[in-house]
Amino acid sequence: MPTDGAVDRGLLSPVSIGAADAVGDDVVLDALVAAEIALTRAWATLDVAPSAAAERVSDRLGWLGAGHPASGHGIDADDLAEAAVSGGNPVIPLVSRLRGLLDESDREWLHRGATSQDIVDSALMLVARRAGGRIIVELDVVDAALAGLAGTERDRVVVARTLGQHAVPTTMGMRVATWLVGVRRARGRLAVVLEQLPAQLGGAAGTLAAFVEHARAAHPADAEAAALRLVAAFADELDLAAPELPWHTVRWPITELGDALVQAVDALGVVGADIATLTRTEIGELAESSPGGSSAMPQKRNPVGAVLLRSAAMRAPQLGATLHSASALAVDERPDGAWHAEWSTLRELLRLALGAASTARALTAGLVIDGAAIERTLALSGGMLVAERLAIALAPHLGDDRARALLGRATDAADLERLLRAEPALAEVDIAALLDPGAYLGATGIMIDRVLDGGQQR
Amino acid sequence: MPTDGAVDRGLLSPVSIGAADAVGDDVVLDALVAAEIALTRAWATLDVAPSAAAERVSDRLGWLGAGHPASGHGIDADDLAEAAVSGGNPVIPLVSRLRGLLDESDREWLHRGATSQDIVDSALMLVARRAGGRIIVELDVVDAALAGLAGTERDRVVVARTLGQHAVPTTMGMRVATWLVGVRRARGRLAVVLEQLPAQLGGAAGTLAAFVEHARAAHPADAEAAALRLVAAFADELDLAAPELPWHTVRWPITELGDALVQAVDALGVVGADIATLTRTEIGELAESSPGGSSAMPQKRNPVGAVLLRSAAMRAPQLGATLHSASALAVDERPDGAWHAEWSTLRELLRLALGAASTARALTAGLVIDGAAIERTLALSGGMLVAERLAIALAPHLGDDRARALLGRATDAADLERLLRAEPALAEVDIAALLDPGAYLGATGIMIDRVLDGGQQR
Amino acid sequence: MPTDGAVDRGLLSPVSIGAADAVGDDVVLDALVAAEIALTRAWATLDVAPSAAAERVSDRLGWLGAGHPASGHGIDADDLAEAAVSGGNPVIPLVSRLRGLLDESDREWLHRGATSQDIVDSALMLVARRAGGRIIVELDVVDAALAGLAGTERDRVVVARTLGQHAVPTTMGMRVATWLVGVRRARGRLAVVLEQLPAQLGGAAGTLAAFVEHARAAHPADAEAAALRLVAAFADELDLAAPELPWHTVRWPITELGDALVQAVDALGVVGADIATLTRTEIGELAESSPGGSSAMPQKRNPVGAVLLRSAAMRAPQLGATLHSASALAVDERPDGAWHAEWSTLRELLRLALGAASTARALTAGLVIDGAAIERTLALSGGMLVAERLAIALAPHLGDDRARALLGRATDAADLERLLRAEPALAEVDIAALLDPGAYLGATGIMIDRVLDGGQQR
Amino acid sequence: MPTDGAVDRGLLSPVSIGAADAVGDDVVLDALVAAEIALTRAWATLDVAPSAAAERVSDRLGWLGAGHPASGHGIDADDLAEAAVSGGNPVIPLVSRLRGLLDESDREWLHRGATSQDIVDSALMLVARRAGGRIIVELDVVDAALAGLAGTERDRVVVARTLGQHAVPTTMGMRVATWLVGVRRARGRLAVVLEQLPAQLGGAAGTLAAFVEHARAAHPADAEAAALRLVAAFADELDLAAPELPWHTVRWPITELGDALVQAVDALGVVGADIATLTRTEIGELAESSPGGSSAMPQKRNPVGAVLLRSAAMRAPQLGATLHSASALAVDERPDGAWHAEWSTLRELLRLALGAASTARALTAGLVIDGAAIERTLALSGGMLVAERLAIALAPHLGDDRARALLGRATDAADLERLLRAEPALAEVDIAALLDPGAYLGATGIMIDRVLDGGQQR
Repeated sequence: MPTDGAVDRGLLSPVSIGAADAVGDDVVLDALVAAEIALTRAWATLDVAPSAAAERVSDRLGWLGAGHPASGHGIDADDLAEAAVSGGNPVIPLVSRLRGLLDESDREWLHRGATSQDIVDSALMLVARRAGGRIIVELDVVDAALAGLAGTERDRVVVARTLGQHAVPTTMGMRVATWLVGVRRARGRLAVVLEQLPAQLGGAAGTLAAFVEHARAAHPADAEAAALRLVAAFADELDLAAPELPWHTVRWPITELGDALVQAVDALGVVGADIATLTRTEIGELAESSPGGSSAMPQKRNPVGAVLLRSAAMRAPQLGATLHSASALAVDERPDGAWHAEWSTLRELLRLALGAASTARALTAGLVIDGAAIERTLALSGGMLVAERLAIALAPHLGDDRARALLGRATDAADLERLLRAEPALAEVDIAALLDPGAYLGATGIMIDRVLDGGQQR
Repeated sequence: MPTDGAVDRGLLSPVSIGAADAVGDDVVLDALVAAEIALTRAWATLDVAPSAAAERVSDRLGWLGAGHPASGHGIDADDLAEAAVSGGNPVIPLVSRLRGLLDESDREWLHRGATSQDIVDSALMLVARRAGGRIIVELDVVDAALAGLAGTERDRVVVARTLGQHAVPTTMGMRVATWLVGVRRARGRLAVVLEQLPAQLGGAAGTLAAFVEHARAAHPADAEAAALRLVAAFADELDLAAPELPWHTVRWPITELGDALVQAVDALGVVGADIATLTRTEIGELAESSPGGSSAMPQKRNPVGAVLLRSAAMRAPQLGATLHSASALAVDERPDGAWHAEWSTLRELLRLALGAASTARALTAGLVIDGAAIERTLALSGGMLVAERLAIALAPHLGDDRARALLGRATDAADLERLLRAEPALAEVDIAALLDPGAYLGATGIMIDRVLDGGQQR
Repeated sequence: MPTDGAVDRGLLSPVSIGAADAVGDDVVLDALVAAEIALTRAWATLDVAPSAAAERVSDRLGWLGAGHPASGHGIDADDLAEAAVSGGNPVIPLVSRLRGLLDESDREWLHRGATSQDIVDSALMLVARRAGGRIIVELDVVDAALAGLAGTERDRVVVARTLGQHAVPTTMGMRVATWLVGVRRARGRLAVVLEQLPAQLGGAAGTLAAFVEHARAAHPADAEAAALRLVAAFADELDLAAPELPWHTVRWPITELGDALVQAVDALGVVGADIATLTRTEIGELAESSPGGSSAMPQKRNPVGAVLLRSAAMRAPQLGATLHSASALAVDERPDGAWHAEWSTLRELLRLALGAASTARALTAGLVIDGAAIERTLALSGGMLVAERLAIALAPHLGDDRARALLGRATDAADLERLLRAEPALAEVDIAALLDPGAYLGATGIMIDRVLDGGQQR
Repeated sequence: MPTDGAVDRGLLSPVSIGAADAVGDDVVLDALVAAEIALTRAWATLDVAPSAAAERVSDRLGWLGAGHPASGHGIDADDLAEAAVSGGNPVIPLVSRLRGLLDESDREWLHRGATSQDIVDSALMLVARRAGGRIIVELDVVDAALAGLAGTERDRVVVARTLGQHAVPTTMGMRVATWLVGVRRARGRLAVVLEQLPAQLGGAAGTLAAFVEHARAAHPADAEAAALRLVAAFADELDLAAPELPWHTVRWPITELGDALVQAVDALGVVGADIATLTRTEIGELAESSPGGSSAMPQKRNPVGAVLLRSAAMRAPQLGATLHSASALAVDERPDGAWHAEWSTLRELLRLALGAASTARALTAGLVIDGAAIERTLALSGGMLVAERLAIALAPHLGDDRARALLGRATDAADLERLLRAEPALAEVDIAALLDPGAYLGATGIMIDRVLDGGQQR
């Protein structure tokens, strides 16, 4: 028996604590009810159910309009969950409870012709669309924050690292613009997927047979076409896309959504990974605005936001894989287990992606740049950081081989400068300018501008 | 803000609905409190903390004895979850709340020398050990049910299928014994792992330094050894194994547990897969005792239990993979995200394994064998089912090549029998006996007996 | 030391045996060389490298034109693989070997300004685009086969099954059209992704600094813009898309490709799952044209193609997850392990998807429909199969409750018919027509037509 | 058509290049042949096949003794791979080819009673046992290297980091001992699993029926028991464990092996993660003995070994998950796809684990400790590193609250020391001793000794 407090409400889920309400049992229940109401309303648009009945059903069961979960129906989620076990899903006991709330004459219009999968799939799409919309909003704020930061940090020279080693100079703006490109791509993909999320309405085995049968009296000449119009009307009522075909066993709506969510978490994971690195005590180029602390170790500035993003990034891919496994193992006209495997997995992935987006919003809103630390890390490698440039620039003076030999001889930055200044062939060369990392930034400036312009043009 | 009803309490988790309370927030919270009390008690066993203080702390915070979560402390899990976000885990705000429940003079003995990871890891091990114990109990009931069934069905001839095709005869008992071997192996592995689950106590970075420091006054000659005794005492209080070393970044306790849980779900998944197949309308050799129904399609006998087992089997492997990823990516003296990725994942895996075990218990308690259907499927292939035997048995009479040729010519079972009876060289052979699938059961009987004996000897 | 025969060339990879050459070491090597040549050619389009040098490099190293791997350079893949270990990738030793094939004066134009990641990423995109193109071709043949089958089987009544149980009638055409919708969606997504696969050119840390530096002499006024033109020219030479920014740590090109490949395998997995079910001895509605056999069991018709599709479907999701993990864990200006984890994984996923598509082509080209078996399975449930329809159709005559009660009383199809005929209120009803499964096919016909029209309109 | 050079022989698999020959097609083929010979030999131990026939078969097909793959049979792996596609596995064409190598009278003793799965499973176990043995050897060298390092570095003070932040002091020896504990646990688990790897011998559907039938003439009184003795003899010939039951659908031998391999990679992944961190330019406490270089950036010391370990760690968990998925989806008396999904996956996981172990051996053999860098990172935090100790040590002098307040006020290490020295209540305290990180190492020394003793006692 699930009871209050019996499950994970967030005590050990800090990354997604704020996301719980977006996909919780109560929201899912409200979406299931909305799907049932939407079907009744769709029957009314076909002049099969009386309009008045559809309105009464809407009122009694708490219809709030297209694209909204229902509210105020008074069904208890825990009680329903218990009742769901024997049938494997909550729709049969839900329909029975909802009918009990209706006038007797209206009851026949509820769930008319539908199968449980129609209601569960449509409700999850509704939940996903709304939670996904919240993710988009969070990502837009992240986008704005990163765009702002990329602009203000456009020209701040920092060390670029590859395999953990100082490589060449870059700019903080370039690093942030790179994050932004990943986030923006994921945001764009997610938005497209959300627009395409279809309602599900297929009846017992995806043939629409019961819908055709029920439509025949009012639409004797074109009952089949009427059933298809019913599907479209149902989708409209839920503000979802109309499906090409019932997708009881064609699960791309689940996997494409899953892929887009994982991609969003991936993109935020990169931000987290970089921040976790750049806040290391030895580096310190960045700090979170509200780092976690330790009473015993007052020097600690734990990058909690970055750590939580990383934890999400380690979990999301496997959740996405489960959705694909379930999709690939669908069989018959309704899968024998694969469908059921999707539910918790998709919800957890939505929760994780929304939580990560929300964490990223807070994190990117307050990143603190430590200019002194940046100078210090630049100084660590000094002129070695532009060794690549020197090899190019010295070649005309020394020849390629001697230039590389000289660079290879240098034991550190000071030694490098000494070697360069001692080289007669370089007497005319402005050594200091040559060693300036700020003069070896490539096309970072115009690439950043291009990214920032790209955002404005959307 | 998590609120009642905000999260997945089971509405779309039918497989694990009964398992929620084993790993829910309230149990985790109680385990966190138990870990804190256990540490205070461990200090008292070292004569560092006064015994009376340890007893007062135990009383106030709801100590229930070694191996039990605490109870009655009155901390609110939702409020604590909120407070946990900024630090990334709930221990800092928990300690502050717990201290508020204690006499001022006792407060210093709480959380003395510990780090958050010590408390979270130890609490999760406590939760896992208890939930794992429940899984063992469920699996033992499954074992008994399967052993019973293997015994009663020891000699019932059924069709064996490979790649979905009728192959040769076997017995229902052999099939069930095969399930049993998988379940029993998983149960054995899980039991071993549960015995080895260690408490965690390392202090800030696994050096035990604060424990040594706090122990020095009472144990000036051997403060380091005293700290190790503290670790052992702490583990004793929680009825967990003492760790070889702090395992902040050595996560085998998590992954070995995860592997054992996945293995248990795998074994039950096979049972589910076979039952889902054998309950197909065209086969019908088995039925669940309480199949799911459909008001619109009264003929349906949905194998809901098997379907739920399959859904668990499709999810568990990826959860196990996440635990391994987190383990493999641990870094420094505490991981920067990998640790956090374990929490929800391990809990969901425990929930899933316990739910699957519980579902399997109900399912295997009431499997219905349909002897008529079994006869029908046997008759479908008839003598073709013993073609392998015929090739062996006819060779002495016909020669190998002619025997195979004859078998290859047969278009169906009736044709096969006709061909055999028409063969002069077989005039003396008892064709009917030769075609009896019940006479070609190999060593199934003694293999089943061996499995059943193996269970008794444990 | 890898030697001929040392690795998996297909002995235990039957699903992808024909795909090996699309992503093998030799193709990858040729693509690496093509990427190096393309860079030299791009420098020539900027009038930085002499055109003649670019032509000589192209000739010597085996340039075959935009979008093609090189050929005839004579580099040995095994030798190169050995040399790759110490640096972690094969580019450094490859460049050295390639330079050895060039005139001394041309050597400087090879790999000018590039980093290893530029070459490896671009080469893998080239390989992926070509292998992906082959997958598209295979899927188009599958599409045509399924479309043909959906058309010819448009009206063949078959049993629809949910959770393994007979549910209502559908048509074989509807089932095939459902497969087709999944395959077509995956094909469409893959085609979009392939079009967008970008070349990679960023230099040491994605700043383009060395390119700018090398371009400056010829383009003193706009060296930065010239570097961007170089990137576009490089992409053109490889017939890949120009990247928005260097994507050293923004790995959506890898994960979106991976997702699309997994989706393709998912869609084929569903086809495999259904065929594996429908070829079961007890069902037999379908057969593969070339089933696998068994010398000992001549009755076996192993659905080998379906089995191989299922094996691919069980592997692909986890490969996709690894690509996401690697993407999400990218850090710095080049990842410290995540990048390396992509290589084998992406290649194996390409191999698997191409192998699955090729297997599906052969499989769907020769599906055999067994009309007699279909009649037999329909007869198994008989009138129970239209119980849903009866509940609707009888209600006007008997009332809803009595109609359902009557249906619930029926023990089997014969009993059902008897009960109906015995019911005085149904005296006027055409019972036989009512029980005809072919008269309860819903909107399957127009849905199939819609799918078939959709294919033609592309 | 697979051709030489058509597949991944290591060009982009640097981590596992040395491991290819352990699991390559040729080894698998030799193991398949060994399994066939072993069965013939087992028949001879039962006095069913003539000893002379078994010896001739052994000689002709290249038997090398128990536990060894065969050699010298001359079968071509590529040709066999081609022939394997139509049946879904290579055994049928292999048996036909092998029979062609035998005297006609000996042919009947080959593959007598066996099914393809018997041969493939047994061969893979043989391959796994041998490759696993090599992994054990590599891990033992790693163990020795780490134990040596933990001993020599037992007392070297270094910074411990949690969430990337300087926390408290620890020792390099403690860090290495922690790695060692993880490696040793994984090694122990793998060794146990390898000992338990069973041969497979079940016949067509795991009933041993054909074996019983073939044994009956020589063992009329106990043909069933003779079949079981045959299984044991077969296992003996392969130096594998005898199975409790045929495990055609009970796949723990595959998943427990997979789990142990993943655990080994996990443990090495942690070593890689720490080394990748500690070799960062800003930290530099460690260096690889043969770091990768860059011609353009001579300052780079790429931690290639660590990077390759990390890449393996990101891939192994998902391979393990695929093995579990396949195990959990096994159905009937032989799985319809799940079995086939294991082959490439298990081989790739063996290759990866062996490659990672071999990489780790080279890496740990030559780790370079940079004492100066360690001093530098210690100095970065200075006294702040022992803030935890100060809070404990100052409390008796200042009271708990004032002690913490003072620590919280310190802006950096110098300021901290100044504040301490300015505090009248601490006039008698030896501030310098208190601030010495080397005096706050907890129980690291005795914990290291315990680990090192543990290794010796094995």
